[in-house]
Amino acid sequence: MEEKEQKKYLKEKEKLVTKVGYLQRVLKEYKVPVMIVFEGVHASGKGRLSNELLLALDSRYTKFYATHAPTETERRKPFLWQYFVNSPSHQEIYIYYRSWYSLYIAMKNNIIKDSLYDGSKLLLQEIRNFEKTLRNDGTELIKFYVDIEEDKQKEHIRRMYDNPRTMWKAQEYDRDNDEDYKREMEKIVLEDQNSWHRIKYETSFVSVNEVLETIVNRLEKRLKKEKKRAEEEPEKRDGFFNGKYPDILKKYEGNHDLSKEDYKDRLDRLQKEMRDIQYTLYERKIPLILVFEGWDAAGKGGNIKRIIQQLDPTGYEISTTAAPTDIELRHHYLWRFWKQVPKTGHISIYDRSWYGRVMVERVEGFASNKDVERAYEEINDFETSLTNFGAIVLKFFIHISKEEQLKRFEARQADENKVWKITDEDWRNREKWDLYEEAINDMLDKTNIKKAPWLVINGNNKRYARITVLETVITACTERFLDK
Amino acid sequence: MEEKEQKKYLKEKEKLVTKVGYLQRVLKEYKVPVMIVFEGVHASGKGRLSNELLLALDSRYTKFYATHAPTETERRKPFLWQYFVNSPSHQEIYIYYRSWYSLYIAMKNNIIKDSLYDGSKLLLQEIRNFEKTLRNDGTELIKFYVDIEEDKQKEHIRRMYDNPRTMWKAQEYDRDNDEDYKREMEKIVLEDQNSWHRIKYETSFVSVNEVLETIVNRLEKRLKKEKKRAEEEPEKRDGFFNGKYPDILKKYEGNHDLSKEDYKDRLDRLQKEMRDIQYTLYERKIPLILVFEGWDAAGKGGNIKRIIQQLDPTGYEISTTAAPTDIELRHHYLWRFWKQVPKTGHISIYDRSWYGRVMVERVEGFASNKDVERAYEEINDFETSLTNFGAIVLKFFIHISKEEQLKRFEARQADENKVWKITDEDWRNREKWDLYEEAINDMLDKTNIKKAPWLVINGNNKRYARITVLETVITACTERFLDK
Repeated sequence: MEEKEQKKYLKEKEKLVTKVGYLQRVLKEYKVPVMIVFEGVHASGKGRLSNELLLALDSRYTKFYATHAPTETERRKPFLWQYFVNSPSHQEIYIYYRSWYSLYIAMKNNIIKDSLYDGSKLLLQEIRNFEKTLRNDGTELIKFYVDIEEDKQKEHIRRMYDNPRTMWKAQEYDRDNDEDYKREMEKIVLEDQNSWHRIKYETSFVSVNEVLETIVNRLEKRLKKEKKRAEEEPEKRDGFFNGKYPDILKKYEGNHDLSKEDYKDRLDRLQKEMRDIQYTLYERKIPLILVFEGWDAAGKGGNIKRIIQQLDPTGYEISTTAAPTDIELRHHYLWRFWKQVPKTGHISIYDRSWYGRVMVERVEGFASNKDVERAYEEINDFETSLTNFGAIVLKFFIHISKEEQLKRFEARQADENKVWKITDEDWRNREKWDLYEEAINDMLDKTNIKKAPWLVINGNNKRYARITVLETVITACTERFLDK
Repeated sequence: MEEKEQKKYLKEKEKLVTKVGYLQRVLKEYKVPVMIVFEGVHASGKGRLSNELLLALDSRYTKFYATHAPTETERRKPFLWQYFVNSPSHQEIYIYYRSWYSLYIAMKNNIIKDSLYDGSKLLLQEIRNFEKTLRNDGTELIKFYVDIEEDKQKEHIRRMYDNPRTMWKAQEYDRDNDEDYKREMEKIVLEDQNSWHRIKYETSFVSVNEVLETIVNRLEKRLKKEKKRAEEEPEKRDGFFNGKYPDILKKYEGNHDLSKEDYKDRLDRLQKEMRDIQYTLYERKIPLILVFEGWDAAGKGGNIKRIIQQLDPTGYEISTTAAPTDIELRHHYLWRFWKQVPKTGHISIYDRSWYGRVMVERVEGFASNKDVERAYEEINDFETSLTNFGAIVLKFFIHISKEEQLKRFEARQADENKVWKITDEDWRNREKWDLYEEAINDMLDKTNIKKAPWLVINGNNKRYARITVLETVITACTERFLDK
């Protein structure tokens, strides 16, 4: 290219860089997370292109994520774990150098061994869910597929061979033939053409500008949408949907009894059995996820204690769910739960969980009605990712009557060692019992998927509840052990 | 043990559990982080003891950290990285099942290969610095060494052999002889007796209570101290020390010139050289850490851009340092920088850094004078950990004159594409020029360690500064490449 033409391109680039910078600053105000994906064959110039983009952005709000062969840790987590965890907050742009598509192809072609996934049929579905979940949450997702003519590619690689410092990298390219990658990517791009921008790499002058221009167009379009939306009425957040829901809780009322001696004997036996189960889970690399939800003072904590009492502490974690931190509030609400997903062979126990979205956040109006309605499907997708990964997922709702709750509140208030457990918030929540009842029944109805069932436990009698929970966990695990 | 005696122990335990729970709640209000370490030989009962402790604590504010053979990721980070990153916030208790001592012994005995550390002589020093840094920051560190009589240990292991579900674990114990571990730990405990609590494991009844009682005593003592401290006058935070400091900045004043053509030629050559250096760093697994500090508008960002312009984006990261998040504020101020420490072979560039502690936090009184004075040593220790790990650490301070800053502020304000870069805060900082000058000179004086030197660059001429920084980086890397 002549110097004169080069200068023309550089001048154009300068303008584009200014525009991209401007758009990044404005969209940050609108809290738009942006994900930009670069897929492409070896030596196609995607490193150059993504680096130029990185230079054009404000490094305080931009991250570059290079996809790598999964580490030990990542291989012990569900398929898309690394990408969910490494996704932008509401003020950031993330650039992905190779992405979940590369990971998918590598897993499909069995380059990545030791995976819990048999076959790849579910993985594309998980990718679709992942992108949908983030898009629905407001993420702008821009995907580039960079291609290059074969002789240009060869020339790039030859130049790397000629430099003694980069020779090792060129050799890596030779070893790691990417014909498979190219064939798969072409198929993916072809089947979903509208969501991909195809770049045929020319020179850095031409192609950098093409990338920048595409991004400017996409972000300008998005900005227009955001401005329009800002003028619309805010979404309702009163927690009321159609007012119809099946009364599931009702089926689990009444009283059970269990004598103290009977309880003690059974508890000890079940706890020892639970410890043995832990070792088998560990040996067979099966993750066990136990979710505990329930009314205040229903006895979630007491149930959890009985489960872990004889366990090996190096193999379980308890996750408690408090109010989200500032960073967590700037992400999809499932982000913090993705971060805590257990690794293979471990037991993860949740004392409250992601279901806060459809309970307290619904009742208190922290989330809009639309967000809540969307959450049921997202939660089902999330849990399906966990069961696809091989996890046993059991969700307990500990149900007590309104009278029983009052009795327990008053008992706590009277005991100097327990009075700290009861707060004004508990009393306020109690006043909203009916609203919670509605939300809970909706939740039990809409998120009771076969592989991750809800188990409502009558908790009016603590001893009965503890024994029942332990028995349920043990039975589910034992069935799985027989399964495969 | 007779049943009657067992009951006595259980009753005593209940009281201790109540006390521990109370102390945890109160010390949380005083913002005391607590670390509890369990070291001990195989089958000594430390799992049982630490699990009982875990059950006694409030799971919302307690974490259990099990030391494991370092993962790939951990092996590419400095020695104590995993423990610094996994340390409690000001409201948490962390229990360590095996700890940095186990890791040290494993590295010393060369069980852990692939390490960048030659020899172990520096590692004990790093442990001392680590504990000192956290203790000075208010951490209560309680260390248990659990021992057991040989025949009791054998009995424990035999029982594991007899259970088909735990047999594999007993076999692991047999394979992994821990004679070395025991010898080393005995030495460590003997040399520092005051800081260790030795538990001779009897039965779970006796030993659990012994552990709980020790913790109650330690925490009660600490609580007393905290109550006393609360009555004392708050620490000064005016940023004034003795008012004497060497005027280091003065040596780097004046003007340099560099013609545009000369600049362009040299820049292009140096950037290509920098790219080659990146490949060599990667191949030789050497981390490169570049810290950029300087006056507002000194040109830190422009300097950084010139360094990365031709680099491979998969091998460098830019860390910008904004105001800390709520979680970061609840940890030692170095915590967030430990989290970002680069892995082997990568380049990490800091646009502002941990030096904020001794600049803005000193000048604005966000940290007390005592905290700031302590910070110099802590920073030196931190950077020494990085250089021990094999990192090249270079710290640039870009110095411009007060007049030059004014010119740049005004130019930014006049340019519609740059006006966003200048904020009221910049003008406020400018008014405190003299205070900053004092803080900067102190910093340059007290943290200029040989392996991680300060390089003051005159930035009045941007072109000169950029070329000088690039040349400095290239020279330092080239020297290292010749070194070994």
